[in-house]
Amino acid sequence: MSDFDLVEYQTRLSLAQKAMCENNLDALVFCTEAEVRYFTGFRTLFWLSPTRPWFLVLPQKGEPIAVIPAIGADLMQKTWVKDIRTWSSPHPTDDGIGLLTKALSNYSRIGWPMGPETSLRIPVRDFDELRSSVGAEFVDCTDLLKALRMVKSEAELKIIRNICGIGSSAFARVGELFSPGQALDDVFRQFKITLLQEGAEDVPYLVGAAGQGGYGDVISPPTETPLREGDVLMLDTGATLKGYFCDFDRNFAISHADDAAKRGYEMLWQATEVGLKHARSGTRCSDLFNVMHEALGGGSSDVGRYGHGLGMQLTEWPSIYAHDHTVLKPGMVMTLEPSLEISTGKIMVHEENILITEDAPLLLTQRAAPELPII
Amino acid sequence: MSDFDLVEYQTRLSLAQKAMCENNLDALVFCTEAEVRYFTGFRTLFWLSPTRPWFLVLPQKGEPIAVIPAIGADLMQKTWVKDIRTWSSPHPTDDGIGLLTKALSNYSRIGWPMGPETSLRIPVRDFDELRSSVGAEFVDCTDLLKALRMVKSEAELKIIRNICGIGSSAFARVGELFSPGQALDDVFRQFKITLLQEGAEDVPYLVGAAGQGGYGDVISPPTETPLREGDVLMLDTGATLKGYFCDFDRNFAISHADDAAKRGYEMLWQATEVGLKHARSGTRCSDLFNVMHEALGGGSSDVGRYGHGLGMQLTEWPSIYAHDHTVLKPGMVMTLEPSLEISTGKIMVHEENILITEDAPLLLTQRAAPELPII
Repeated sequence: MSDFDLVEYQTRLSLAQKAMCENNLDALVFCTEAEVRYFTGFRTLFWLSPTRPWFLVLPQKGEPIAVIPAIGADLMQKTWVKDIRTWSSPHPTDDGIGLLTKALSNYSRIGWPMGPETSLRIPVRDFDELRSSVGAEFVDCTDLLKALRMVKSEAELKIIRNICGIGSSAFARVGELFSPGQALDDVFRQFKITLLQEGAEDVPYLVGAAGQGGYGDVISPPTETPLREGDVLMLDTGATLKGYFCDFDRNFAISHADDAAKRGYEMLWQATEVGLKHARSGTRCSDLFNVMHEALGGGSSDVGRYGHGLGMQLTEWPSIYAHDHTVLKPGMVMTLEPSLEISTGKIMVHEENILITEDAPLLLTQRAAPELPII
Repeated sequence: MSDFDLVEYQTRLSLAQKAMCENNLDALVFCTEAEVRYFTGFRTLFWLSPTRPWFLVLPQKGEPIAVIPAIGADLMQKTWVKDIRTWSSPHPTDDGIGLLTKALSNYSRIGWPMGPETSLRIPVRDFDELRSSVGAEFVDCTDLLKALRMVKSEAELKIIRNICGIGSSAFARVGELFSPGQALDDVFRQFKITLLQEGAEDVPYLVGAAGQGGYGDVISPPTETPLREGDVLMLDTGATLKGYFCDFDRNFAISHADDAAKRGYEMLWQATEVGLKHARSGTRCSDLFNVMHEALGGGSSDVGRYGHGLGMQLTEWPSIYAHDHTVLKPGMVMTLEPSLEISTGKIMVHEENILITEDAPLLLTQRAAPELPII
């Protein structure tokens, strides 16, 4: 039933327990989708409902403990987790906090993710109560978690390679899908259908834009504005397979392109080439950012970084930007995502997905054309 | 550019400010997608990336203040919000907390959602820092927020009606889409495509199951198991339009059904009829639960409730269960979702979406057939 063999989960736990030992932590506790899934294999879209909290306890020694609403017991029983403790949720006065407090009663130092890119998927009130009712110190375990999740296993890579291939196949069909006069929301809808037809399981993320000679922002939902000749169309998709993401974009000119758009595209393509040359084991993210930034002539955009980690989440640690000194390691999956203001108020973004190896990085996406494609 | 006219947002703010005044709160602060969107119209899938925090401050008097990453400035400028304060995010040491602290410097009582169904979409460490650096009391404002968001405006209802209609049209096509031998993951994929073709903007949620005479859980992703004759297939979808959800399911028997499945289906259909009769203005959710529970002969399942609010989120306050005494009001959109163990280890769930009015509720979904449909 699970997405991976037993040994995958045993390895994840064992590496986590080694790290707990080194950091003098008695247990790690998680309440977020990616972490619960990473260590148990429990995969469901049901997390979209904010009503019920879910918890996972990883002791420094021994087996994982799932503390979850009864509605999830059947699915959790299909994972490798044996110790499943449930309550009837929603509950008017104690939505799992009592049960979790009991499970944590023997610990004195508990790791809980509290740092960058983490969130708390339970009410603040419940977390405050937990911290005061459990007689233990709560310690931030973000770095520990980041180190574990950043490096992907062969089994994870297989899925990520597949979804990047599916995304590439969908983008290869763009020429037959879109034409001037088509409303942008229809463009989005058709592209989602294409991704599903090519084998994506879900398309949780599709953003983009179209505008004469370029676009102003890269995170908007689509309007009903029709594509016009001279538009640059950008689509950026995070499609998924077994809960793993691709995350890359492509730019297209509708019928023709102006010189600024062509030049901007080529600069970004070249900056990505520079990124591909330098993205290897031992390089720091900050250094990778600096060489790409230099390739763009020190130009700037508001995007804030030139790429990031990728896997169970659309974006993961680390960030390719001046202040992230994370050292790249084999097995890390990254996006290279340079961006540039190509004319006043118009930006352009390029994005590829790569696997860091001992040697040159492996492209997971089919490399974008070196010149702005015209459709 | 926004999904609603200016007056919609002005009304939302004005009702929030009235509630702040009554609750002696100087401001409300939000960091979650639904709340930021509700008060500003800022709609983007970009929230899927956990990297950057986003904040909205609603003062008791005056205009909203958006404290957001620079990457979102362009899109926020298209909303009605005028006071937009940005920083370059991600940031290594201060990801918006300094800017937010400054924005909150004149307040002494700040409302922040900390209760049931809320979460904290920023790192705990940043929230702890905020609470200690802002010289104000942080007060839970969940009830206030719930009261505002539960009652939908005419403009919201128009969208919800549309997406419920789209879901109904997609379900009407099931007979031509599925057949014995088809793998369940293909069933899911085809149904997502159908929802998009019928006009859904996104399909963030599709769960379901198929099994001989019934199914064991209702939150699983699909396996590759082929549909067999005698299976009961259930699909439960949360498709969206302009960021508003439908949330309902349908059950189908493949080729034929056994008596337990037929009887279970009819009991649930009747329990929904009872729900439809009692779901009206002035009724408490707990009373609605009790009459539906009685109609099911006091049977039980692990689902924990018989429905919930619906709108910008797949599930919203309130819950139809024994401990939620929320009084139904005109304008509330609810799901009726009775569930039942129909034989050992097999459950069944029915779900419809309704609008509470002064009189009988309005069905937003095309009512399920009274007998288990065979396809």
